[in-house]
Amino acid sequence: METKRMTLLKGMAIGGIAMLTAACSDSDDNHSDDAVHKDKAPHAEKSGGHPAAAGGHAAHWAYEGDGAPHAWGVLKEEYGTCGTGKGQSPIDISTVTISDISEIEFNYKSTPLELTNNGHTIQANYHTGSYITVGGKRYDLLQFHFHSPSEHTIGGKSYDMVAHLVHKAADGQLGVIGVLFKAGDKNKVIDKLWANLPTESGETKTVKNTRINALDLLPVDLTYFNYSGSLTTPPCSEGVNWMVMATPSSISEKQVKQFTDLFPLSTRPVQPINGRVVRVSN
Amino acid sequence: METKRMTLLKGMAIGGIAMLTAACSDSDDNHSDDAVHKDKAPHAEKSGGHPAAAGGHAAHWAYEGDGAPHAWGVLKEEYGTCGTGKGQSPIDISTVTISDISEIEFNYKSTPLELTNNGHTIQANYHTGSYITVGGKRYDLLQFHFHSPSEHTIGGKSYDMVAHLVHKAADGQLGVIGVLFKAGDKNKVIDKLWANLPTESGETKTVKNTRINALDLLPVDLTYFNYSGSLTTPPCSEGVNWMVMATPSSISEKQVKQFTDLFPLSTRPVQPINGRVVRVSN
Repeated sequence: METKRMTLLKGMAIGGIAMLTAACSDSDDNHSDDAVHKDKAPHAEKSGGHPAAAGGHAAHWAYEGDGAPHAWGVLKEEYGTCGTGKGQSPIDISTVTISDISEIEFNYKSTPLELTNNGHTIQANYHTGSYITVGGKRYDLLQFHFHSPSEHTIGGKSYDMVAHLVHKAADGQLGVIGVLFKAGDKNKVIDKLWANLPTESGETKTVKNTRINALDLLPVDLTYFNYSGSLTTPPCSEGVNWMVMATPSSISEKQVKQFTDLFPLSTRPVQPINGRVVRVSN
Repeated sequence: METKRMTLLKGMAIGGIAMLTAACSDSDDNHSDDAVHKDKAPHAEKSGGHPAAAGGHAAHWAYEGDGAPHAWGVLKEEYGTCGTGKGQSPIDISTVTISDISEIEFNYKSTPLELTNNGHTIQANYHTGSYITVGGKRYDLLQFHFHSPSEHTIGGKSYDMVAHLVHKAADGQLGVIGVLFKAGDKNKVIDKLWANLPTESGETKTVKNTRINALDLLPVDLTYFNYSGSLTTPPCSEGVNWMVMATPSSISEKQVKQFTDLFPLSTRPVQPINGRVVRVSN
């Protein structure tokens, strides 16, 4: 008897998703600047990796304690959107509309390896000149960083890790690609990154003669979920063009642990969809 | 500059879909019998391939003329559901809910090639012993047949052809797998079928020493859309467990034409969704 079993989700693979971590900046609304102004270790937490309450004044934002996600909106006036916004991210991607959305055209070059520990995550800064084009609009790649577990969930399911590839268009709009990672085979690009982890908050490591390419993070299948959301860290600015890959890439359990050993918490809970439509290509 | 372009829909591939053609039976509610009682050329149209109006009494159902789809519900009392049913097929699969639906386990054997021209389509009859199991329920494969263009559409888009693999459970429920075909490379199984096309309505061809396996119609990725619908031909009985593959298989333009030369019209228009939920695996 011939038996063919369903290879679940090879195509419409689904899992957690990518969200946008802004750098740990209490004063800078434009988090993508972190990728542009390199070698500055910008905005690093002065109070360490998990600043729950920073002495006399308001708590820094964090993933637990006084500065935890439910409190972000009241920590600072400029974080108000985190509490009042109706188009926040991440979300659970559970109902999607199939439509003719544009392909993403990737025009990524390799870039010298430069990693920043910004107190919340590991961020790989990208040299200028790499970009995507989607629907005729160009978004320049600034940086990518990680969360574990994934921030977006798919059909209620989260993935082991996510990379957020942060882009910015000439008109200032952010476009973020989320690449989910499912525990399995070791990821070669992440191997390069983790071999050079900056372990101190505020630390930046530049590795001569080592180049990486964000293309190598992408799954083979580039079907993606598209919706309008926000930064997933304060100030939670909205109008972000989210593109969450439907198929996960692979990462080893050990690689996940290497990240969570540094950042045990890095995931904002899912936010209300509030009638927003998530589209997927047909 | 390295460029990676989106391979649109490799995974969540989308297009037209499969619908269930019952045999052209005016008196038999159980169309799947066509696959079981072989060598009978059952229920063949006596009035030819496109019976618009059959003399003095009511028109036979068809895809044009007096017996066209909009009139099916009033052609005969037992076709009433075609006009009044609220759970009809095909539908446009445009909004889908991602959830933990079961894999389909395929247990198909090869079967001797036996093709029937039932006046509406070409149907391959299947010997007993082949089945799927989904959610713990077994559905036995009875027959498969074709429509061109596809009956289901995905995000408003129809495909060049569809195969409907008709199964029946012990409790009488029908389960139909739709396999979409997109014009491209030649399909090897369909080559075997079309080489032995019965061109006369009511004709059945049995080809000694040629076996086929419905497994070979399936795409590599078995992600599917699932919803409750109906037969797409009179009597349009509801309660059909529809499983529409999200990824299309390939067929050549010539192969499509070989079918449409015989059956220029074989597609019921899409029906209202009426609040039904289409689920897809995550």
